[in-house]
Amino acid sequence: MDIKTMIDRVAAAVQAVREANPLVGSVTNGVTMEFVANAQLAAGGSAAMVYLPDEAEYLVEASGAFYVNMGTLMPVYEETIPAATRKAAALGRPWVLDPVGIGIGSLRGRLLADMAACPPSIIRGNASEILALAALWGLSDEQGCVRGVDATDEVAAARMAAVELARWTCGAVAVSGEEDLVTDGHTVATCRGGSPLMEKVTGFGCSLGGVMAVHAASADPFTAALASVLLYNLAGSRAAVAAQAPASFKAAFLDELYRADAMDVSGNHFSLQEV
Amino acid sequence: MDIKTMIDRVAAAVQAVREANPLVGSVTNGVTMEFVANAQLAAGGSAAMVYLPDEAEYLVEASGAFYVNMGTLMPVYEETIPAATRKAAALGRPWVLDPVGIGIGSLRGRLLADMAACPPSIIRGNASEILALAALWGLSDEQGCVRGVDATDEVAAARMAAVELARWTCGAVAVSGEEDLVTDGHTVATCRGGSPLMEKVTGFGCSLGGVMAVHAASADPFTAALASVLLYNLAGSRAAVAAQAPASFKAAFLDELYRADAMDVSGNHFSLQEV
Amino acid sequence: MDIKTMIDRVAAAVQAVREANPLVGSVTNGVTMEFVANAQLAAGGSAAMVYLPDEAEYLVEASGAFYVNMGTLMPVYEETIPAATRKAAALGRPWVLDPVGIGIGSLRGRLLADMAACPPSIIRGNASEILALAALWGLSDEQGCVRGVDATDEVAAARMAAVELARWTCGAVAVSGEEDLVTDGHTVATCRGGSPLMEKVTGFGCSLGGVMAVHAASADPFTAALASVLLYNLAGSRAAVAAQAPASFKAAFLDELYRADAMDVSGNHFSLQEV
Repeated sequence: MDIKTMIDRVAAAVQAVREANPLVGSVTNGVTMEFVANAQLAAGGSAAMVYLPDEAEYLVEASGAFYVNMGTLMPVYEETIPAATRKAAALGRPWVLDPVGIGIGSLRGRLLADMAACPPSIIRGNASEILALAALWGLSDEQGCVRGVDATDEVAAARMAAVELARWTCGAVAVSGEEDLVTDGHTVATCRGGSPLMEKVTGFGCSLGGVMAVHAASADPFTAALASVLLYNLAGSRAAVAAQAPASFKAAFLDELYRADAMDVSGNHFSLQEV
Repeated sequence: MDIKTMIDRVAAAVQAVREANPLVGSVTNGVTMEFVANAQLAAGGSAAMVYLPDEAEYLVEASGAFYVNMGTLMPVYEETIPAATRKAAALGRPWVLDPVGIGIGSLRGRLLADMAACPPSIIRGNASEILALAALWGLSDEQGCVRGVDATDEVAAARMAAVELARWTCGAVAVSGEEDLVTDGHTVATCRGGSPLMEKVTGFGCSLGGVMAVHAASADPFTAALASVLLYNLAGSRAAVAAQAPASFKAAFLDELYRADAMDVSGNHFSLQEV
Repeated sequence: MDIKTMIDRVAAAVQAVREANPLVGSVTNGVTMEFVANAQLAAGGSAAMVYLPDEAEYLVEASGAFYVNMGTLMPVYEETIPAATRKAAALGRPWVLDPVGIGIGSLRGRLLADMAACPPSIIRGNASEILALAALWGLSDEQGCVRGVDATDEVAAARMAAVELARWTCGAVAVSGEEDLVTDGHTVATCRGGSPLMEKVTGFGCSLGGVMAVHAASADPFTAALASVLLYNLAGSRAAVAAQAPASFKAAFLDELYRADAMDVSGNHFSLQEV
């Protein structure tokens, strides 16, 4: 994979979303669902969130891609999440998993373990979450160390776990941190940008997963994940120029997400390495 | 209905809310419930949201009007929503329905079908939702075409469905779009204003329904619906002068909702036509 | 308790949070959970919200303190909230209660009544909520008069109820209003500041409770409650200089919450009185 081809693919992915306004359904975190929806809209998609099993199945079918975020699970998710992932597998619909909260509670553990049988197209998490998911699926011996919803591990420590997960799922894995890593199991992209303020506002990770689903509606998983990371880094860097505190930074970020064009995003710095 | 009378009624409705600070209970969409509450507060009301059946009954009784938004249904809503609408009917309490998501899932379909027996005072939706609801209640043969939570039909296409629904409910119906339509089944008001950015932020439709409930606490359904649409168009137009991207636009909109006075709202352009 | 000691304790509490970034788990209100999380992050903590019983137990154990807000109860909270409070009692973990909505619905009444047996470290509410809770626990004959989620009583009217509750719980009680009151049952602190715009945005009360939990992770209940009230009053006063309408005020407030340092907070005016 040479970098010029990748830059063109990223630009095409961002452009396609701006033109096609793809619908993306989500089962997602109550804390951040408004941020997820607004980020998906700002990136050029259309958003719909549901809690119930048959509604999730309907939306998987109606959407270009689907998003499952494991935060704030409700009892009914015991049915909703498997219904959605089975439907996505049956239809070959791309879907994105954010394993937030991995390690907390028995339902989350069971649902995530069962996903090994019908894996997501894209997995996005922080380093600790990616390490924990690879361990849960028997792909790695390292457990990672999640503290609530925060990472205590560095992105580099999750590199091999990410590669193994991407190979196992035949999809893409993105690890968020100071330096972001995106891999399809063969190529690893590393990207810099954004702002430390992204840690001071809830939902930057959750909404990045939602935006990956928007891009996965028309691009392959690796391109969709990388385009979304580059878009976030670009908008985050620009917002940090305009705002130095969390709430004004968040508003500036969503504004910049909306303003960013395909050339700006694909021109944001990243590098590629073969594994 | 002459326009001067209507202008006076709108001004009186907006003024009454600013003075009386009416409490409005809601069973509403998880994605946008904070926006709904903040819009209700900015318009001069007081907001309380609940999930459970007996809490909804309590709030129907304690509130000047009630709001039911059909987004993100939970299993318990199978009891909560009928409990609320039955209580509203028993007490003659005005209530507003937003049939968002109509067509998605079996519970939503059953709940909406049952509402034909104790209909809302105001229905607010996009053109596709209004067409679908009129079809569900057997008032029209056109089905409309909802895509997730978005309209694919034009407001004009839903004009007759809106009129039929308003006659059937003896209430008011508002169809949101580039040109908004509000009718009591005899008179049709058309209104312009707002901004295309209202489509780029989640919750403008949901929160407009919530603000209609605030006005319905003291005004008749048609006046309450029209006053709210005019208020939204005014605040949206003003916010679009201050902000050109979604997140800063949303903040500017809520600020303008708070600042708008009765004269400004009632003086915003609209026209009336007898059906 | 002399004021100089108290000022030093407040400064130390604010500083400790900025340095230790304590994790605080919450079972909290759907309307305002994003605001709660963002306020906890801006104050220097880390936030995680859950709905399910075993997840709440896990988070009580993993957190420095826990937050229970009684808004928007779900059916599963019948198990979740007692599981969390029993776990907190078993581990001696501090926790904060916001009895929002007291008087609405049977589940809320039962859950709050049962808390008399394993009481919170800090209770935060408006005057009507504090009066109603003291009456529910048999500590006072005055019932208070809650209207939805709003107070209809003055802070001064809840003074004795707050003192009785603080003595009964051996913790602290904070009553929010134009003039805020914080007591440990022996000393009463009164504080001024903030802005009337805090009533025009949903979640200032809820998020203050969440921020109290952040400070309770490292300070005693009285100091944690007082430090949080002073921090809110300071950030509110500063935000009111920058913004005169609700949405821009809210953003400015969160920015100021993030910027406030320990000296600024502890230097904000308050007075102490022995009961």
